[in-house]
Amino acid sequence: MPSFKVYEDEKTLAFLDIHPVSPGHTLVIPKADNSRNIFDISAEDWIAATETARKVAHAVEKGTGADGVNIMMNNRVSAGQVVDHPHIHIIPRFKNDGLKQWHHNSYRDDEAKGLLEKILRAFT
Amino acid sequence: MPSFKVYEDEKTLAFLDIHPVSPGHTLVIPKADNSRNIFDISAEDWIAATETARKVAHAVEKGTGADGVNIMMNNRVSAGQVVDHPHIHIIPRFKNDGLKQWHHNSYRDDEAKGLLEKILRAFT
Repeated sequence: MPSFKVYEDEKTLAFLDIHPVSPGHTLVIPKADNSRNIFDISAEDWIAATETARKVAHAVEKGTGADGVNIMMNNRVSAGQVVDHPHIHIIPRFKNDGLKQWHHNSYRDDEAKGLLEKILRAFT
Repeated sequence: MPSFKVYEDEKTLAFLDIHPVSPGHTLVIPKADNSRNIFDISAEDWIAATETARKVAHAVEKGTGADGVNIMMNNRVSAGQVVDHPHIHIIPRFKNDGLKQWHHNSYRDDEAKGLLEKILRAFT
């Protein structure tokens, strides 16, 4: 159970990550214990968790005196998910904190077009 | 305007980032042009954008054959925000794709307790 509770309501809970990426790093989770990540969370729990994340992001930025905030969710092991319950990271950021954003690339030729077609088919 | 539209509904739009972190990297934005980030987006637009992000995350993972997905939002320049309109990144991840998660640290002594108090005060 989380020791440092930041926020709680009927459907969600927020608490300090005790192994923070930066001081004030907070996790938001749905209380319901029936999903693992974005792929199986209910629409209802997702709305509740993201709404809590929005409120908590404000308080974390203000309370820590941060210069910005990353909101992140890692889904499945290959995306860096460690705990098998949906959780949203609220990470306060500070000027020159040394945390690096991922490198952006370019598409070759018709690569984007081909991928778009595959993604569009995956909706159906 | 985005060239590679992935999804559109009344309040939101999703399209391929033409400078992707990984192939299939998709951006979700609210259509309303009256906010910059998580700190000033309306509750209504936030719910719409995160719901679209959930749907799109499924299609992006399936369509690209990814092994996981990061959902990320960078708020303010110090958090890596480049475009001054709220946008949610959907980043497909692949086993051994080389993208590094940020390092986690530990708190010293009563550091977490002090931060928690400041964050709790920031809600009021």
